[in-house]
Amino acid sequence: MEEKYTIVIDTLGSDKGPEAILEGARLVLEEYPNVNLTLVGDEELIKSKGLPMDRIKIIHAPKTVTNYDSPTAAFYDKTNVYSVFKAVEECGKDPNAIGIISSGNTGALLVGTLRYLLNEKRQRPALAAILPNMAHTFTCLVDTGASIDCGPTQLVEFAHLGTEFMRKLYRIENPRVALLSNGSEPTKGNHLVKETHPLLSKEEGINFVGNIEGSKALSGMCDVLVAEGFAGNQVLKNSEGMAINLITEIMKFGKMTGNEEITKQIAGYIMKTYDFESLGAGIMLGARKYVMKCRGSSGPMAIKNTTKILINIMNNKTFYE
Amino acid sequence: MEEKYTIVIDTLGSDKGPEAILEGARLVLEEYPNVNLTLVGDEELIKSKGLPMDRIKIIHAPKTVTNYDSPTAAFYDKTNVYSVFKAVEECGKDPNAIGIISSGNTGALLVGTLRYLLNEKRQRPALAAILPNMAHTFTCLVDTGASIDCGPTQLVEFAHLGTEFMRKLYRIENPRVALLSNGSEPTKGNHLVKETHPLLSKEEGINFVGNIEGSKALSGMCDVLVAEGFAGNQVLKNSEGMAINLITEIMKFGKMTGNEEITKQIAGYIMKTYDFESLGAGIMLGARKYVMKCRGSSGPMAIKNTTKILINIMNNKTFYE
Repeated sequence: MEEKYTIVIDTLGSDKGPEAILEGARLVLEEYPNVNLTLVGDEELIKSKGLPMDRIKIIHAPKTVTNYDSPTAAFYDKTNVYSVFKAVEECGKDPNAIGIISSGNTGALLVGTLRYLLNEKRQRPALAAILPNMAHTFTCLVDTGASIDCGPTQLVEFAHLGTEFMRKLYRIENPRVALLSNGSEPTKGNHLVKETHPLLSKEEGINFVGNIEGSKALSGMCDVLVAEGFAGNQVLKNSEGMAINLITEIMKFGKMTGNEEITKQIAGYIMKTYDFESLGAGIMLGARKYVMKCRGSSGPMAIKNTTKILINIMNNKTFYE
Repeated sequence: MEEKYTIVIDTLGSDKGPEAILEGARLVLEEYPNVNLTLVGDEELIKSKGLPMDRIKIIHAPKTVTNYDSPTAAFYDKTNVYSVFKAVEECGKDPNAIGIISSGNTGALLVGTLRYLLNEKRQRPALAAILPNMAHTFTCLVDTGASIDCGPTQLVEFAHLGTEFMRKLYRIENPRVALLSNGSEPTKGNHLVKETHPLLSKEEGINFVGNIEGSKALSGMCDVLVAEGFAGNQVLKNSEGMAINLITEIMKFGKMTGNEEITKQIAGYIMKTYDFESLGAGIMLGARKYVMKCRGSSGPMAIKNTTKILINIMNNKTFYE
């Protein structure tokens, strides 16, 4: 008999509203009969959706941490009930819960994870993105924005987290780790990179291949790309933005020249590799359960795809298999 | 009668070697009869090229500052003659010289500029890139890697330099200035962005439109995108890398499906907008002459195109007209 999993979903926090996330929950329940859901958010709204009550648990927590709030201040604000914190807490408490999916504020998700889901080593988790690359494999970019302004020892920690992840999920025995810089030479970089480079060079258990610049971020020259959160966020979002820009240009060309059929095919081919929207989720490495961060613009498909990733992980498949 | 210009070219520093730069010099002399060149580098080699001696001046300075050298240490190393420093010095001294073109080490070019080409306000120059965007206009990204680890007041200075440039070169009366961040909300950002945001908000003469994240860097939502050099370098190089990646994918699709003719057209169409290689040069804003930084991989066409940019500027045209 197939194993049963519980996944906790924070139904608030998406720009598309809780309706879109709940529609995603419906898709998940339809597609995965072995998955039960704990839905955190506005109880009345969740109840109104007519989801099968024997497969869902509802936790009432109707507040959202917006991008204008301080996540830490919100965490200590006991007068309010924030869905993201309740969801992470529940995920930590429920022994059947394998992970949480949230499309809310990244900082809040990190704060919740730090409080409720630290692993036995009590490592600070890092938000990774698993990105397609030119070698048609995947690159684990870590961190992508959860740890801003961090120091060299944290970057070394990211290298370990990424290495462990790529070894486990992609069965790469000795993942190649690179450090994001503004040039490939070891002498290049900001203060942080210059301090981190020698540490990574001598770090045991890390297959360090040196610095990589932004143009080679998705070249496939490394399996793990270590970056401080602010810079990593630029690579993640810029790559996504450029893919969208160029696909838009291709479609425009098709329309202009009457080649819409073929340009649609080309866009589809590119999207198959570079569709960041459906790839979607980031994963908090180093937490003791799977903490999946969907982007703010997530809709139903993002929730369904992210569930699939969790199922893949549980079934010892690769992330995007 | 057409005005005569002198342009100083640092013939060393390109990965393609001085031969490629000298071939570029030949193209420039052929194409622009009103341009004379001061060529700095290996005198023997330059002489051997048979360029018209009445239109060139040669300065012997056979050493290169590599990406493994410290630019400042090299500058104070009096036993050696570095082409990049000699070239900037000559540009500063020669009243006919309108600018310098170098494809060497960025740090060295900055050090030379600081020493020989400060403007009357003695501002620290910033390296800008003029990038194509989705609105089919141009975005001035400043800084792109000359000023790493700089502070809030420098970012405000970059905003002024970019504003002045876009007003003068693109005739935009009130250029929209944005600050690169990891989210559009004013509360997001690293320490630097959080400190800079309120300064830009109240800065006189700056039309500040707020924070922009990496995915919108080339959206055309701003005319000037202010960034600390390390982060700006990520946006510049990642955008370039992604454009190349996707064009490669398109060509691959064409080959696979027997649609090479049309995919070649599409690649050409995209390249027309996003060909960073031929756009090529960065410009040091705030210097008292035009300091053009070509990329390390520059060949003959990069030199010729960058000369064209200088001619455009002198003729009160836009950068890429």
